[in-house]
Amino acid sequence: MSSAGNVIPLREAAPGGTVTIRLPGPFEMWHGGILPEVRLACETWGKLNAARDNAVLLFPGLSPGPHAASSAENPTPGWWEYMIGPGRPIDTRHYFAVCVNSLGGCFGTTGPASIDPHTREPYRLNFPELAVEDIAASAHGAVEALGIERLHAVVGASLGGMAALAYAMQFPDGLDDLVAISSATRATPFTIALRSLQREIIRNDPEWRSGFYAPGKGPREGMRLARKLGLVSYRSAVEWQQRFARERVKTAAEEQTPFGIEFEIEAYLEHNAQKFVDCFDANAYLYLSRAMDRFDAAEHGGTVEAGLARIQARRTLVIGVETDFLFPMQQQEEIAASLYSLGRNVTFVPLASIHGHDAFLIDRERFAPVMARFFAEA
Amino acid sequence: MSSAGNVIPLREAAPGGTVTIRLPGPFEMWHGGILPEVRLACETWGKLNAARDNAVLLFPGLSPGPHAASSAENPTPGWWEYMIGPGRPIDTRHYFAVCVNSLGGCFGTTGPASIDPHTREPYRLNFPELAVEDIAASAHGAVEALGIERLHAVVGASLGGMAALAYAMQFPDGLDDLVAISSATRATPFTIALRSLQREIIRNDPEWRSGFYAPGKGPREGMRLARKLGLVSYRSAVEWQQRFARERVKTAAEEQTPFGIEFEIEAYLEHNAQKFVDCFDANAYLYLSRAMDRFDAAEHGGTVEAGLARIQARRTLVIGVETDFLFPMQQQEEIAASLYSLGRNVTFVPLASIHGHDAFLIDRERFAPVMARFFAEA
Repeated sequence: MSSAGNVIPLREAAPGGTVTIRLPGPFEMWHGGILPEVRLACETWGKLNAARDNAVLLFPGLSPGPHAASSAENPTPGWWEYMIGPGRPIDTRHYFAVCVNSLGGCFGTTGPASIDPHTREPYRLNFPELAVEDIAASAHGAVEALGIERLHAVVGASLGGMAALAYAMQFPDGLDDLVAISSATRATPFTIALRSLQREIIRNDPEWRSGFYAPGKGPREGMRLARKLGLVSYRSAVEWQQRFARERVKTAAEEQTPFGIEFEIEAYLEHNAQKFVDCFDANAYLYLSRAMDRFDAAEHGGTVEAGLARIQARRTLVIGVETDFLFPMQQQEEIAASLYSLGRNVTFVPLASIHGHDAFLIDRERFAPVMARFFAEA
Repeated sequence: MSSAGNVIPLREAAPGGTVTIRLPGPFEMWHGGILPEVRLACETWGKLNAARDNAVLLFPGLSPGPHAASSAENPTPGWWEYMIGPGRPIDTRHYFAVCVNSLGGCFGTTGPASIDPHTREPYRLNFPELAVEDIAASAHGAVEALGIERLHAVVGASLGGMAALAYAMQFPDGLDDLVAISSATRATPFTIALRSLQREIIRNDPEWRSGFYAPGKGPREGMRLARKLGLVSYRSAVEWQQRFARERVKTAAEEQTPFGIEFEIEAYLEHNAQKFVDCFDANAYLYLSRAMDRFDAAEHGGTVEAGLARIQARRTLVIGVETDFLFPMQQQEEIAASLYSLGRNVTFVPLASIHGHDAFLIDRERFAPVMARFFAEA
């Protein structure tokens, strides 16, 4: 794959900013489909050095886009603001950080809402089957397009952690270091149950119209309720006990609506679910969600262990969170133990955070020192 | 409250069977509403002895009816079949077991689907606000109607455990022994979030019609999806990993329906959710679910501890399950610790079951010996 002519040049004057990278030629999907063209929305921070060996690839989770941190171009705080920047754990005075928006998603990357060049219509459900491996391979294409042969590190949490593992299995020579946070080598039936139910709630909304909703429209109620279920699974009972306990809302919607909002926790869910509805394409959500269910490291070698054996990272950091019941600590232990038994240099850090699966987004106090040390020791 | 004339006589020849008990006079609800008449569907097993001191009151959980065990009249296995019967932990050769169907529910007990005698129409959302205390007080009325002044024991799990605690706080002289399994003195924000979302899924189904669906009709899709969410919260990730792992269904519905059923865990949820839809009234579900959110032992004394201090049971057995994330072990520990610090005779049994919140229904091996010993030592 050649990168010639495919890079929208990074502005030297403004470190950080948005680039859209078009991959050269058709893109072959993991399960056999083909995308005639792929555009990837990316953001970058810091500068690629002359040796081109200081790049850190970040994979987002299921719902965020590529805006992981603020930049001169976009000063809005990103989803991993505390992690990326000058003097931060991924220190952009030294590292060139790149966040590639997931293939199959929205936010400017090719996905089910994109126009199929063959039909001039949105792909919708004609988008080919998506795998986590496609997210990894398309990001690899972006990395090549940026003229990077080998990454200093690949980092991801949640779906991003699955993608980071996939990247390291698919392109074993493509990275020095690997960071997998609250990730999984394969989905458990418990998480399949939750995601399957989210998808069914979305599909059950008549406005989904079997995927044929008008652009910008769609199953808003289904997305809102599915997002609430997501939120329930992303945090922890302990955090909510401390934060909300049994506080009532000041003006109970119950007074207007039978069975309406009465407790603060219900208002919190409603507020956060509403924010999500307006910014995520429903079909993209369905594709990404199912890709998580189907991800299985065993596809890389017959067994999970054989799949992980493909990983050749010089160092691997595995982080788990005690209160995460979606990607539980045991799954992180298993990844670390497998790599250790294969003779790899692996550091396993269990964190006693109360913030559940989302801890990497919130618990700066626990995550920042662990990440800073790992990157400083490189 | 007099019991004269309110008992439908138990058939001496057939120990066990269904009785409907009509409470005498209007029933005053915990939050101030009034039901002009209350009928309670009950089932019994064994015989009340001459001293009338061998009765065991059982409270069902949220979804089951009063059919806790089979009987000569109804040989279908009940929801606690292994627990009740001759030679079983609640040994009906010695004890007279009574299961009273929850007020506000369905299965023959007065609830939102019942006819309001004032309007000759179903109550629907005009049913007065329901509290767990009303479930307890109505069962107390049934117990009085059966001519029982003091129960040998009150037993409940989940919502039934809340009702058992409420009973012991409301009628401290009404029982010798108390058994609270996977219960709570108040709902946590995590469980409020889950139940609130279930209720919203039901209310969002257009067939709910703000509660005005025709009898026997209703929000079937909403109930089906809400039940799936219930099932996800009633079991454990460990159990499903052992039972389903990543098994695929033989004929994937995915082939017919985009994003349809593909994994065995999805088929399991679908099968069990379908069973529920046909047998539970949606408005009853909303009322019972919200009663669980609102239950708070602090209403019995200013604080939870002061509420629990009302309990005068001779012995209390508190059972918790390690993998229960809905009514977690810590809540069971707190109940036991509070009663212990009040000088009560309390036994706390934590069980290492993999079956989550539903363990009491499934894990005979762990539950039967604990219950058998508690009842044998009486």
